Amino acid sequence: MDVADLTPAQARERFRGGERTPTAGWCKGWTQANLIAVPQELAYDLLLFAHRNARACPLLDVGEPGAVRTRLFPGDLRTDLPGYRVYQDGRAVADTGEVVAEWRADLVPFLFGCSFTFERALLAAGVPVRHLEQGVNVPMYRTNVPCEPSGPLAGPLVVSMRPVPEALVATAIEVSGRYPMVHGAPVHIGDPAVIGIGDLGRPDFGDPVEVREGETPLFWACGVTPQAAVMASGVEFAIGHLPGHMAIIDARDEDYRET
Amino acid sequence: MDVADLTPAQARERFRGGERTPTAGWCKGWTQANLIAVPQELAYDLLLFAHRNARACPLLDVGEPGAVRTRLFPGDLRTDLPGYRVYQDGRAVADTGEVVAEWRADLVPFLFGCSFTFERALLAAGVPVRHLEQGVNVPMYRTNVPCEPSGPLAGPLVVSMRPVPEALVATAIEVSGRYPMVHGAPVHIGDPAVIGIGDLGRPDFGDPVEVREGETPLFWACGVTPQAAVMASGVEFAIGHLPGHMAIIDARDEDYRET
Repeated sequence: MDVADLTPAQARERFRGGERTPTAGWCKGWTQANLIAVPQELAYDLLLFAHRNARACPLLDVGEPGAVRTRLFPGDLRTDLPGYRVYQDGRAVADTGEVVAEWRADLVPFLFGCSFTFERALLAAGVPVRHLEQGVNVPMYRTNVPCEPSGPLAGPLVVSMRPVPEALVATAIEVSGRYPMVHGAPVHIGDPAVIGIGDLGRPDFGDPVEVREGETPLFWACGVTPQAAVMASGVEFAIGHLPGHMAIIDARDEDYRET
Repeated sequence: MDVADLTPAQARERFRGGERTPTAGWCKGWTQANLIAVPQELAYDLLLFAHRNARACPLLDVGEPGAVRTRLFPGDLRTDLPGYRVYQDGRAVADTGEVVAEWRADLVPFLFGCSFTFERALLAAGVPVRHLEQGVNVPMYRTNVPCEPSGPLAGPLVVSMRPVPEALVATAIEVSGRYPMVHGAPVHIGDPAVIGIGDLGRPDFGDPVEVREGETPLFWACGVTPQAAVMASGVEFAIGHLPGHMAIIDARDEDYRET
């Protein structure tokens, strides 16, 4: 069965069984989300950080302290993602396939929107999605654009990049702009140096993709931004998804499309 | 000087000087906001309540614990509104013109959008605004629509009501819908009984207005909703604006219009 045709429950079962993979292209029509779980004492600051940086951190769902599921993610947040990154004192200390031992009773799980959500709409509009074509993870970059801080949380905006043929740039902007809850339109178009990206070939997260002649790089705000803030702010403990390895939730892409 | 022509700073100075009045029609082109300040231990629950009930509680700004100003309200939140309501154990214990003595170091002030913000746009589109015509406070009602709870916070959706001639109902919906950060389009149109309102002539907050033959009552989500939750949930202590007596902030109505 093509992974595009799986339901979220079927995908979560595969990940629970040990499959580790980026999730772009999985579960056609179903929404993917960024996970960040932080200690309860930091939950207010993160919630306010999300409000203040809503383009990068569109809040889809929040769990109770210690909960391993949320309303939109009726699986087990400790096992049902295809990859996790564990942080201690702001440093990534482990990339792993499950976090049963690491999960703490004081962790509050947050789910933020992910731009994978509008990739089907891009394809339907004739806009190619290079990392899907190449079968790799989407490239993501730290920028020199600071987020608005909240309490101890501060850090750079993280963006995902998709190269788009010049004739289709306007289409890509328009189509993604219809999905404001999953990052919406690009935050930057063109020269990566303007937002502090030195080399597109060396992303901070994910894999590089080919940018062909006549293509313009488009940059979308990315839900890895809270993880960059966890790192920049030296947060004592946090668990995120492994970038590109998303939580697949029981919501439809179309739930997040503006009408 | 007509109060419509005052700047926010000038209006705040008047209120600081003791003027007590509903603020509909004040400071043309400037944004008005609902105030609710709650103890820090409840701030996370309120922030999440706002996210879960965003139509009623569109978050414009949050202050630090104990702060008496915010980025968008550079006055003194204890004196520069034209009316306050103080709550203890969920009961309104005082309506007053200032809250210097009552303000506590652990209070976190929240500012939410207010539908007064799009009334100029309604007038410009030819839609009459009855409470402005009558020179009274807007009528507000508790509904039978429950908010989504957050921690200990639960309560009914509160709505404001404006009667609109039938031929202009679509216009009123379209115009207000352009301002999603200040409640957007109505949540209900027509029969008040459907949302649990027994008598339009007896609002729970504000003043009754005349509904004329051929007019349809339109109901918008209202930023008094957090105060209704404070009451319904028996919150230990809180300070809100007196309904209709808003915080006038240093932001433009047009900042909240979708383009």
